[in-house]
Amino acid sequence: MTDALRDRWMSVSEIAAKLGANYEGQGDCRINGLATIRDANQNNLCFVSSKKFLAELSLCQAGAVLLRESDAKHCSVTAIFVENPYLAYAQVSQWLHGAEAATGGTHISAVVDTSAQVSELAQIGPNVVIEAGAVIEDGAVIAAGCFVGLNTFIGKRTRLAANVTVCRGCHIGHDCRVLSGSVIGADGFGFAPIPSGGWQRIEQIGGVRIGDRVEIGACTTIDRGALGDTVVESDVIIDNHVQIAHNVHIGQYTAIAGCVGIAGSTHVGKRCQLGGGSSIVGHLKLDDGVVVFANTFVTSSLEVGVYASASAAQPVADWRRNQPNLRQFHLLARQMRRIIGKALGDETSGAKSQE
Amino acid sequence: MTDALRDRWMSVSEIAAKLGANYEGQGDCRINGLATIRDANQNNLCFVSSKKFLAELSLCQAGAVLLRESDAKHCSVTAIFVENPYLAYAQVSQWLHGAEAATGGTHISAVVDTSAQVSELAQIGPNVVIEAGAVIEDGAVIAAGCFVGLNTFIGKRTRLAANVTVCRGCHIGHDCRVLSGSVIGADGFGFAPIPSGGWQRIEQIGGVRIGDRVEIGACTTIDRGALGDTVVESDVIIDNHVQIAHNVHIGQYTAIAGCVGIAGSTHVGKRCQLGGGSSIVGHLKLDDGVVVFANTFVTSSLEVGVYASASAAQPVADWRRNQPNLRQFHLLARQMRRIIGKALGDETSGAKSQE
Amino acid sequence: MTDALRDRWMSVSEIAAKLGANYEGQGDCRINGLATIRDANQNNLCFVSSKKFLAELSLCQAGAVLLRESDAKHCSVTAIFVENPYLAYAQVSQWLHGAEAATGGTHISAVVDTSAQVSELAQIGPNVVIEAGAVIEDGAVIAAGCFVGLNTFIGKRTRLAANVTVCRGCHIGHDCRVLSGSVIGADGFGFAPIPSGGWQRIEQIGGVRIGDRVEIGACTTIDRGALGDTVVESDVIIDNHVQIAHNVHIGQYTAIAGCVGIAGSTHVGKRCQLGGGSSIVGHLKLDDGVVVFANTFVTSSLEVGVYASASAAQPVADWRRNQPNLRQFHLLARQMRRIIGKALGDETSGAKSQE
Repeated sequence: MTDALRDRWMSVSEIAAKLGANYEGQGDCRINGLATIRDANQNNLCFVSSKKFLAELSLCQAGAVLLRESDAKHCSVTAIFVENPYLAYAQVSQWLHGAEAATGGTHISAVVDTSAQVSELAQIGPNVVIEAGAVIEDGAVIAAGCFVGLNTFIGKRTRLAANVTVCRGCHIGHDCRVLSGSVIGADGFGFAPIPSGGWQRIEQIGGVRIGDRVEIGACTTIDRGALGDTVVESDVIIDNHVQIAHNVHIGQYTAIAGCVGIAGSTHVGKRCQLGGGSSIVGHLKLDDGVVVFANTFVTSSLEVGVYASASAAQPVADWRRNQPNLRQFHLLARQMRRIIGKALGDETSGAKSQE
Repeated sequence: MTDALRDRWMSVSEIAAKLGANYEGQGDCRINGLATIRDANQNNLCFVSSKKFLAELSLCQAGAVLLRESDAKHCSVTAIFVENPYLAYAQVSQWLHGAEAATGGTHISAVVDTSAQVSELAQIGPNVVIEAGAVIEDGAVIAAGCFVGLNTFIGKRTRLAANVTVCRGCHIGHDCRVLSGSVIGADGFGFAPIPSGGWQRIEQIGGVRIGDRVEIGACTTIDRGALGDTVVESDVIIDNHVQIAHNVHIGQYTAIAGCVGIAGSTHVGKRCQLGGGSSIVGHLKLDDGVVVFANTFVTSSLEVGVYASASAAQPVADWRRNQPNLRQFHLLARQMRRIIGKALGDETSGAKSQE
Repeated sequence: MTDALRDRWMSVSEIAAKLGANYEGQGDCRINGLATIRDANQNNLCFVSSKKFLAELSLCQAGAVLLRESDAKHCSVTAIFVENPYLAYAQVSQWLHGAEAATGGTHISAVVDTSAQVSELAQIGPNVVIEAGAVIEDGAVIAAGCFVGLNTFIGKRTRLAANVTVCRGCHIGHDCRVLSGSVIGADGFGFAPIPSGGWQRIEQIGGVRIGDRVEIGACTTIDRGALGDTVVESDVIIDNHVQIAHNVHIGQYTAIAGCVGIAGSTHVGKRCQLGGGSSIVGHLKLDDGVVVFANTFVTSSLEVGVYASASAAQPVADWRRNQPNLRQFHLLARQMRRIIGKALGDETSGAKSQE
């Protein structure tokens, strides 16, 4: 039962107390679920963080609402006043529905090497394989079908969902989660070209070092380092289908959305946000706080700021007319600059320098 | 033997009868395979649906050919006349080679919770794990190494290929297929930012609801909803490496090619076609019948129509000359519009409005 | 212990002899690891292949350095002289750290069909499933949790890392490696549209044929052919999250970086290089030696050459100004060409032909 959600009841007064918040209305109202403003019933809690949803509050049937005190007048049901309703909602979601703590114990079908150190308080699911020298700490949950390689470390309360692979010599800290299908510590893509044809593999002898409270989505890959480790610092969140190549370094608090690819040895700073589908080439440095929009192609190091590159969808007829022009744009631009120079006498414009 | 193809013989007259088609030639010719026009031998069936392949028919060695009656004169071997040769070919491929029905029975190595309801007519492969409360209906095939989480429902004749993960509380209808490495129902990527740094996870308490006859490729992820379900309606086909985020809704008959990413809460209509590698940002609405070319970046809701955005490969020398011009295009465009205004007196043109 | 690296000692004279190289300094210096110039200690070997790192050699603490004889004067420690230091380094990485040879034997928890032919010299890990008629040759290593389908062939010394899926009827040659989470031989995405709505699956009856010394990364998919095989020739290297669709053909020595998608029936020549994140549509032919930059969108067949298409990240303010101009570029271009024609009398320019 590694995959169970909690199902609990809390009173409004309990929730308010845990949040350190005031409330107005029925403190003994009992809550056992979260819902949207529209769908909420009398046992549900909902939240309003954006002004545009305030109008809907008049029809809200929720047992209680998390909102800012300044918005209290819009609320006709029990209200819990918080500065950051979205964050409070996330916290309550943990208290009501967060995963059950590990029960401890190893399923009879698991294959655990006798030299592995598995805490009695860790929970090892069916068909798990744990190789020699691995360490699984208290409260960790290794769900069905996972593989934990030679000498790999899994910290306290860290959870691997079903069918996760963590290869040899990796380190995953405390309170992390890795979702199904992900692969931590596969060999990096390192090959030397052979002049006569073909490729000589370079053994990847580094590991992967992951901090605490890191969240890794499904079908994501984080390759081991060639020399030295690939590093994901604490408090990083990573979505599905992300590729993190060998010797990449991801700074604390950074968020990486789905389908991002980061090539080898790139250093991503702290508190960065990488939009879904972005591609970042290798050996770059993204400073702390860089924000990259979805689908952006990053080919040079970036200072703090917000960046984008992709063009958005347009009707295919327009696109078809644009494409041939764009492909030979440099020819057109050269001619245009000659004309601009003649017509405007603007030979000193910034537009010229790239000709 | 969960992975076996049928190997059967059918006569031309049988095939024609099942298709409701006429034929010309040897009705007793026996067929046990499909092939291309060029490679077909006397036991093979091939098809011609495009005029451009008619010329090759004169050399065709096939036992029989599926084609339109109007093309009969090009065919020197046995011909089966159908309106839609490609569709007929697909149907025959099922009759000759479709997967064998489930044999029923649970492999001794499978770990099935005693509270799971597994039909005796379902086939459960080696090392499968089925958690409490799961339901596996008649004729379903759960191949080796799959994980089926708590309370998840797998409908009649649905097949999970080897090493598929379906997390807790998901519903997959009848006659679906999910290919290897895919993950259904992983937690969506939902986190509230903590002002002091880091991220508070929002428990994802919705599920995934998949209709009937849905086809899901390999290494594809469909995340569970945050509140309420992620929904894939019946008759949807989804290729490999697709990412469908929490609370996305995919309408009936829609086709999604490989490597597409769809961000959270986006609603894709019925009969849409999303080309390979496309990225669709969150909270959009694509109307029924929207077609998106390969590699398109969709950032706004779309009415019915055909859309594209990506530029195609060009020789790198041209690309290098174009890029700096494109990056500062707005500067050049402003100057150009001044000149256009002077030269053409065309101040009212549509091109001006975006300056 | 399928995931173990070797840990060996070699003397400088041994290494030089195996490389067929001369050395200068202490032949009896013992090496048991590789390192960067900066981190190397007296038991480490490092390499210098680029002039820009020569300056760092004066402070290098390595036991020995691989470098070109012409650079000898920069080196104050023991030097091994080779023409191609990077290739030599890759070779030494194998000798010191290459995976241990298969120990032979099948783990008691593996489920192996009695009709499968598994060499006694092959190593079959825990919870592996091998179906009927499969062949596993000498020295192959099938790590924990892998699935090998009906009649599939795994050649000598080929290694499947943990949790790899190889479906029925595939052929993987000698000395290959497939990393975790990858799926070889899933059904291709082949469906005929049904005029009334929906899709008729076309059974995919081809296989996947992979040559020798092919390297396949993690979470990569190579689909089986519809008719005839999907083919990856020998000496190809493929990174993580790559999608190779049905009936694609990849020529010898080609390298495919991470997150590339190749649609059905495309033929990629020998010695091609496909940059990370590139998308290649179906039914194309890329000649031998084609090089495609990262994130390129290939929509037509390519002759030998170097190609690119993606635009690089720019500050979002510039991007926002550029996008509307680019979307209606064809309107602006038409007006510009009229002006260019008037101003320059250059009606014969190449830029005109696309209007």
